[in-house]
Amino acid sequence: MSKTANLTNRKTLHIEWGDCDPAQIVHYPRYLAYFDACTTALFKKAGLSKRQMLETYRIVGIPLVDLRASFKAPSRFSDTVVVESEITEWGRSSFCVRHRLFNRNVLSVECFETRVWAALSATDRETIESKPVPPEVIGMFSVDTNHSPARQRPRRNKLA
Amino acid sequence: MSKTANLTNRKTLHIEWGDCDPAQIVHYPRYLAYFDACTTALFKKAGLSKRQMLETYRIVGIPLVDLRASFKAPSRFSDTVVVESEITEWGRSSFCVRHRLFNRNVLSVECFETRVWAALSATDRETIESKPVPPEVIGMFSVDTNHSPARQRPRRNKLA
Amino acid sequence: MSKTANLTNRKTLHIEWGDCDPAQIVHYPRYLAYFDACTTALFKKAGLSKRQMLETYRIVGIPLVDLRASFKAPSRFSDTVVVESEITEWGRSSFCVRHRLFNRNVLSVECFETRVWAALSATDRETIESKPVPPEVIGMFSVDTNHSPARQRPRRNKLA
Amino acid sequence: MSKTANLTNRKTLHIEWGDCDPAQIVHYPRYLAYFDACTTALFKKAGLSKRQMLETYRIVGIPLVDLRASFKAPSRFSDTVVVESEITEWGRSSFCVRHRLFNRNVLSVECFETRVWAALSATDRETIESKPVPPEVIGMFSVDTNHSPARQRPRRNKLA
Repeated sequence: MSKTANLTNRKTLHIEWGDCDPAQIVHYPRYLAYFDACTTALFKKAGLSKRQMLETYRIVGIPLVDLRASFKAPSRFSDTVVVESEITEWGRSSFCVRHRLFNRNVLSVECFETRVWAALSATDRETIESKPVPPEVIGMFSVDTNHSPARQRPRRNKLA
Repeated sequence: MSKTANLTNRKTLHIEWGDCDPAQIVHYPRYLAYFDACTTALFKKAGLSKRQMLETYRIVGIPLVDLRASFKAPSRFSDTVVVESEITEWGRSSFCVRHRLFNRNVLSVECFETRVWAALSATDRETIESKPVPPEVIGMFSVDTNHSPARQRPRRNKLA
Repeated sequence: MSKTANLTNRKTLHIEWGDCDPAQIVHYPRYLAYFDACTTALFKKAGLSKRQMLETYRIVGIPLVDLRASFKAPSRFSDTVVVESEITEWGRSSFCVRHRLFNRNVLSVECFETRVWAALSATDRETIESKPVPPEVIGMFSVDTNHSPARQRPRRNKLA
Repeated sequence: MSKTANLTNRKTLHIEWGDCDPAQIVHYPRYLAYFDACTTALFKKAGLSKRQMLETYRIVGIPLVDLRASFKAPSRFSDTVVVESEITEWGRSSFCVRHRLFNRNVLSVECFETRVWAALSATDRETIESKPVPPEVIGMFSVDTNHSPARQRPRRNKLA
């Protein structure tokens, strides 16, 4: 019997001086830029480099439609933090990504992004519309837990 | 009999090339930077310039603790948009700001920020803690609707 | 006898909290983002909205090839500054833009951008190459100084 | 006889979607944010974490006074680039940092920053003034080339 879990990516970030505001803490829009990069890294770990993914599936991106975030503790420049990211839910043409940012092992920011698989409209090149997520893409985010992640994805780990 | 309403600020923004991503639409963390500036502008309309406010009330800022946003329609570089901002709720040491971004009169992004009135801890200068919002500050966001806003705040309108 | 001068744009900017770093002054990459927006505004004053310009002339942008800036005095959040921008030199496919940022009438930042008129290569859509600037575009940046600017460009002034 | 060379740091960067503009290439102010982070990383390799450095030497930062950059080739999202950074010159209270960004081993951007060692004025806390760079700080950027870097700085390499 086979069990599956969600593919998870862990990304280590160095909080930069330029990401912080005069209160000496991360200016919150920068967290959202971090999380956008973490979603990209999660797809890369699944085998989908963003540039290649856009070409292969003829999409323009995976833009946000909904965002929720809670900021529990501030981080400061020179801090090193770790963001754990996974896709928690797949809809027909949308999906939800959860990011949890840990600073010295304390959960400091939690963020839920709802994104859509988006392409240019065939009839109006100015319009972006959502498309069904290809099943093969969804399949790339399932981890067969009967095997250790290390054996399963030896070449992908270095990309994350 | 006196009626009050929430002070509202309208800020016109030009969507810049550098705010847009390779899909040619606003990269969503930039919306949050816009809204942060809109909250600053709302306080300025109430008579509280950010730098002065920090000095007067000895706070380090009004950082976010919670964020919700929904992105209903994309905006593109060279678009001109209007953001309407108001404080919808006051707690003891926190408050909620609602921003609604309109592009050609269509509601395109809606955002709810929960912020706290924050000062450095008296005992640990590395720690930021929330403080009760001064009642006089809350009072500055009430508009007496028996009078026209134009008569009431002649010198403030030019700041917004 | 007719004399010409360079079209100049003046853009007023409010220094935002999120543009400043823990030293409480503008984080310098943000100045370059301001100046990019000021170049866009200068072209708009000349009658060339960026989106329209890209469509009309089938270019992908006017990217930088060279940058020089000197930072003479810092600016802080809540400051209001004015940036004066003009094109100081036209080459065959490149041009130089000068920006001068004034804070309380003191020249605080001076920046020289060298940009190219850039299109996708006809043979390789991954390659961007410079193209000659159309003479009509260059002509739009000359101001006939025998006439007052106010009479000459009544509808453009409001755009800047 | 002992020979010295400049300490050099190499930082690998992943070009993010959000760093690119509608022309699908890095928006140039983002390069300057990269280089600011690279200067921080160079100091960290020398043993000076930014937060600690500010506390130890009671400075507010190392702000830019002059900037020169040339952009020779564009980079795109999903590219991985390497930035080599070193301090090429020390003045009394200023120093010059050179950054060279390589994309697939091709020099794509070169940048020269002139920065100052800056502290708050003792008499006016609103004024930032330059201070002499401590000789011990300058010494930390000299590499004795008679010894292999591996032997000389075993604990620092992991920080860079």
